[in-house]
Amino acid sequence: MSKFLNNNLKKLVAYVPGEQPQDKSYIKLNTNESPFPPSTKVVKAINKKSVKSLRLYSDPTCKVLKEKIANVYNVDSHNVFVSNGSDEVLNFIFMAYGEKGVAYADITYGFYSVFAELYNLESTVIPLKDDFTLDYKAFLNQNKLIVIASPNAPTGIEVSVEELEEILISNKNSIVVVDQAYVDFGGTSVEYLTEKYDNLVCVYTFSKSRSMAGARLGFAIANESIILDLEKIKYSTNPYNVNTLTQLAGVMALIDNEYYMKNAKIIQSNREYTKTELCKLGFEVLDSKANFVFAKNSKIDGKSLYLKLKEQGVLIRHFDKDRIRDFIRITIGSFSEMKIFVEKLKNILGELKWEKQL
Amino acid sequence: MSKFLNNNLKKLVAYVPGEQPQDKSYIKLNTNESPFPPSTKVVKAINKKSVKSLRLYSDPTCKVLKEKIANVYNVDSHNVFVSNGSDEVLNFIFMAYGEKGVAYADITYGFYSVFAELYNLESTVIPLKDDFTLDYKAFLNQNKLIVIASPNAPTGIEVSVEELEEILISNKNSIVVVDQAYVDFGGTSVEYLTEKYDNLVCVYTFSKSRSMAGARLGFAIANESIILDLEKIKYSTNPYNVNTLTQLAGVMALIDNEYYMKNAKIIQSNREYTKTELCKLGFEVLDSKANFVFAKNSKIDGKSLYLKLKEQGVLIRHFDKDRIRDFIRITIGSFSEMKIFVEKLKNILGELKWEKQL
Repeated sequence: MSKFLNNNLKKLVAYVPGEQPQDKSYIKLNTNESPFPPSTKVVKAINKKSVKSLRLYSDPTCKVLKEKIANVYNVDSHNVFVSNGSDEVLNFIFMAYGEKGVAYADITYGFYSVFAELYNLESTVIPLKDDFTLDYKAFLNQNKLIVIASPNAPTGIEVSVEELEEILISNKNSIVVVDQAYVDFGGTSVEYLTEKYDNLVCVYTFSKSRSMAGARLGFAIANESIILDLEKIKYSTNPYNVNTLTQLAGVMALIDNEYYMKNAKIIQSNREYTKTELCKLGFEVLDSKANFVFAKNSKIDGKSLYLKLKEQGVLIRHFDKDRIRDFIRITIGSFSEMKIFVEKLKNILGELKWEKQL
Repeated sequence: MSKFLNNNLKKLVAYVPGEQPQDKSYIKLNTNESPFPPSTKVVKAINKKSVKSLRLYSDPTCKVLKEKIANVYNVDSHNVFVSNGSDEVLNFIFMAYGEKGVAYADITYGFYSVFAELYNLESTVIPLKDDFTLDYKAFLNQNKLIVIASPNAPTGIEVSVEELEEILISNKNSIVVVDQAYVDFGGTSVEYLTEKYDNLVCVYTFSKSRSMAGARLGFAIANESIILDLEKIKYSTNPYNVNTLTQLAGVMALIDNEYYMKNAKIIQSNREYTKTELCKLGFEVLDSKANFVFAKNSKIDGKSLYLKLKEQGVLIRHFDKDRIRDFIRITIGSFSEMKIFVEKLKNILGELKWEKQL
């Protein structure tokens, strides 16, 4: 830290993303990426001609991409905001709507608390229930920015539409964000509720189901006046935030949307396989609607399991945090990856048994 | 604007970027892009294999790219910060260092005042001298964030190293930003001064000389402690802000740096041609070290000239702002583009003469 940094940022602790090792090759089940490559239409569209066009600025209005998103999600393009990844969408939302404070769950996407700290917002942290479902009643009448991930990370558990609607109705004068990064893996997309509730912002990403984590593309669907707020912030920070090739890739991905939705179904099937195997091995596995499962085993703590799997070339994620220290989060990859994961896990647990018998 | 927007953002007026028309084809001399395509190494590197890798997140540390920048600029990679365009670098700087206010010139890159407003910073606006050079003495002992574009936009005029050093020395306890977006067109790059002055941040972009406006890539060179501040803000807003293909393109562009520096020389030569022709047509032309010229003609105001050129298929930029309302800013394109521009200009001025004789 330099001596020049603003006082209000001195204590800020940044978000720690999952490891992205560039040196060694792992079976990478730690940052919820897709095991499937982008569709052939995406691969074909990024060609010599499109790369040469990089000399010109990208379209700051993201016109074609917005139209395509609107089309797939059955909304108007005026209801769509596009940004450089959904983290940036969330960043803008915290910047725009946090002045009365912000409420979010204790166990949820770790970035929410970082944004709150960055903008010096008062945080109301609402514990999940003992079974890790949302204590939705505690979110009623908060009258501040509310941020809910559904499906939630790292639990994978979804909030019901009825509960979301109660939260929306009881917080009429503040923004309710539903972060739907993981919705395509069997969750319920609630973008259609933006017609009914002018305080709802649904946030999506191309990083998970659409195999474009490295391209950075996220978007929000909301009432037009909210989209205009977010555009104003974008044009006050970085108007050309979404690069040309990402806009193009996004359009082509949506043209090939079926391919991605089919892949999402395969992930769900691999998830069920993984869950079954984990249960057989004595794990408790939460009910996930996402492309990961959150599980614990009374025989071994989360950190040890993470380290042992890493030794064996499998990266998963462990959060060193109260209430979830015993858990590991396993991204659902291809079937063969999950089979290897299960095998490695069996070995580790087998050795553990053997060690204990000594 | 929605009723939910924070009070402090209600009056915010966003930056207005130059037109990026997507429908009609213009001779586009309005946003300082390069007429040259990215180098063949860049074009070749973005291929099927690299596009397929988009399923994985980009390297948030931008390790290889930082090393390459460090190599070309003869600094250590710990002195390099990489971001999604230089606007984002500037955004982070304003967020990090503005608490004591910010000083910048009245005629300079229009985004500085927007950032200041966004973060509610007190602005000290220091008028350029009558000849549009920097009144550097007014920047001495300001003891707040200082932001200077050199070469300046939209004038193209450079500040001398001696003057910059005086500013750096007299503002030891605050950050001095030198925005060098246009430095490769004959300006003086001052990154070497970061070794001597721990309060200097030099900001660069790949959008101008390196033909990558659409890829979004900017960087800063500064003392390591400042880089750590900027990394902290990046990791608190959008850790994966630079996408995979842009990082790759940046690396390849630097490997091919000679190609771009040769192009920058051609632009300088086209600039001298354009300047000579403008003078012949009675224009006053400021002394530009950038890939644009700023010029006025007493026979026609800036806005009319902008509109007449647009009618004829040539886009230039006009700023409807005190002191520079009479000027137009013309990006320097290819020689053939500049010849067409000069021809169109001759026609317009010829018609004007004829109209006046009637």
